Amino acid sequence: MLRIVIIGTGRVATQLALAITVKDRPLRLVQLFGRDEAHTREFSELCGNIPYTTDKNQLQPADLYLCSVKDDAISDVLQGMHFGSGMLVHTAGSVPMELLSGFACHYGVFYPLQTFSREKVVDFSKITAYIEANDNYLDLILKPFANELCGQVRQVNSATRAQLHLAAVFACNFTNHLYTRADELMQQAGLPFDDLLPLIDETVEKIHHISPALAQTGPARRKDRAVCDRQRAALKGQTAAIYELMSQCIWQYYD
Amino acid sequence: MLRIVIIGTGRVATQLALAITVKDRPLRLVQLFGRDEAHTREFSELCGNIPYTTDKNQLQPADLYLCSVKDDAISDVLQGMHFGSGMLVHTAGSVPMELLSGFACHYGVFYPLQTFSREKVVDFSKITAYIEANDNYLDLILKPFANELCGQVRQVNSATRAQLHLAAVFACNFTNHLYTRADELMQQAGLPFDDLLPLIDETVEKIHHISPALAQTGPARRKDRAVCDRQRAALKGQTAAIYELMSQCIWQYYD
Repeated sequence: MLRIVIIGTGRVATQLALAITVKDRPLRLVQLFGRDEAHTREFSELCGNIPYTTDKNQLQPADLYLCSVKDDAISDVLQGMHFGSGMLVHTAGSVPMELLSGFACHYGVFYPLQTFSREKVVDFSKITAYIEANDNYLDLILKPFANELCGQVRQVNSATRAQLHLAAVFACNFTNHLYTRADELMQQAGLPFDDLLPLIDETVEKIHHISPALAQTGPARRKDRAVCDRQRAALKGQTAAIYELMSQCIWQYYD
Repeated sequence: MLRIVIIGTGRVATQLALAITVKDRPLRLVQLFGRDEAHTREFSELCGNIPYTTDKNQLQPADLYLCSVKDDAISDVLQGMHFGSGMLVHTAGSVPMELLSGFACHYGVFYPLQTFSREKVVDFSKITAYIEANDNYLDLILKPFANELCGQVRQVNSATRAQLHLAAVFACNFTNHLYTRADELMQQAGLPFDDLLPLIDETVEKIHHISPALAQTGPARRKDRAVCDRQRAALKGQTAAIYELMSQCIWQYYD
């Protein structure tokens, strides 16, 4: 039975806690740590009243300490904590493992590649976890934990993980902002955003079967200068800037 | 029974022909027209040997002529054709209806909002069609046709349709190019693109339930300057330009 402490109360921490406390897993969530009392209590209740603390000196002994806080808060939060012979890992895509070297003897990274909501329970069995460790606790602690939780586990170094995180930013964060711009355009036309959903679904469905480079369609791909110019002229501000750059990128990509 | 002629042999024409010729519909595909003999014959065979021609003088009488060719080829293709008392419509998102005014008495637009592949049969029952016509053939011909084929039908003018098409370019074409850039980044990291699919699926799943503006996550949304700067510095060329602009847009959108 792997004893686990979760540090942090955000979306990733919440989803990890819910997945770890699923019945019959060889995992035991022994404690939650959060900086905010009310927030941490609420988190504890959500997970079935897991013991919690806001006091760094009250951390319980555990095999694995999962630190899921904002990237730039990791050092602050860990400062003054003691992990004994436990393994400390963070869950951030773009933070080098070595950031943890000053805080614990055994440390590493557990990066589950997914976008997390607070409301929606995530199915970890469909997720790939990218792991890394500074010593053999990789095989002793981290790999068994990752294999228990996730559908697929890959061992990568921090540089590869940073690159992967970048790809995720393009595939998730940036595409979502394009949906936001499309939503605005629909609103201006007096049409519901939901009209676009079958198109969005099909765009994604395609790349499950062929590479996105081959799936590309649209005016810029067809090198239809007249449509591109007309569409560009119909837009203003940053939406126009996005149109111009993306069209240019597509145009040149297929030159 | 609505008699239909399809002009064009591309992806939209193909999918329309396949949908129209589904059994027991009150629609009859009487002829296909294409400029290239071999291509048109192949298309005819795919649709169950529908009669075809490459001769503009051999067009059959029909109630509805569906012109599905590249936007900038519409006028060229229609030049010299005669539609008698039939209704002529094009299927282009961004082409004004009035382009057809010189070619037929009764004309309009049938724009099915979807991205079409040649290989994959499209389920029109899930698609919204946007229609427009110059006279009462809208109710007589176009609306019954659209209602027979599509799950939802909306009547919009050319300006609204152009705006809608723009939204579709953002939601489909531009997002797909971001997948292409993500694919490149994954390849550089030696990781399979498919690792990103659960993330991509979840990103889209979210916006079925909440607005994309609310669903936004990532370093730029968190205003995490350190990560944004580091990620930007790790990129080159147009991928860097996309990173910079999209991050800036997200940052300012939530200011």
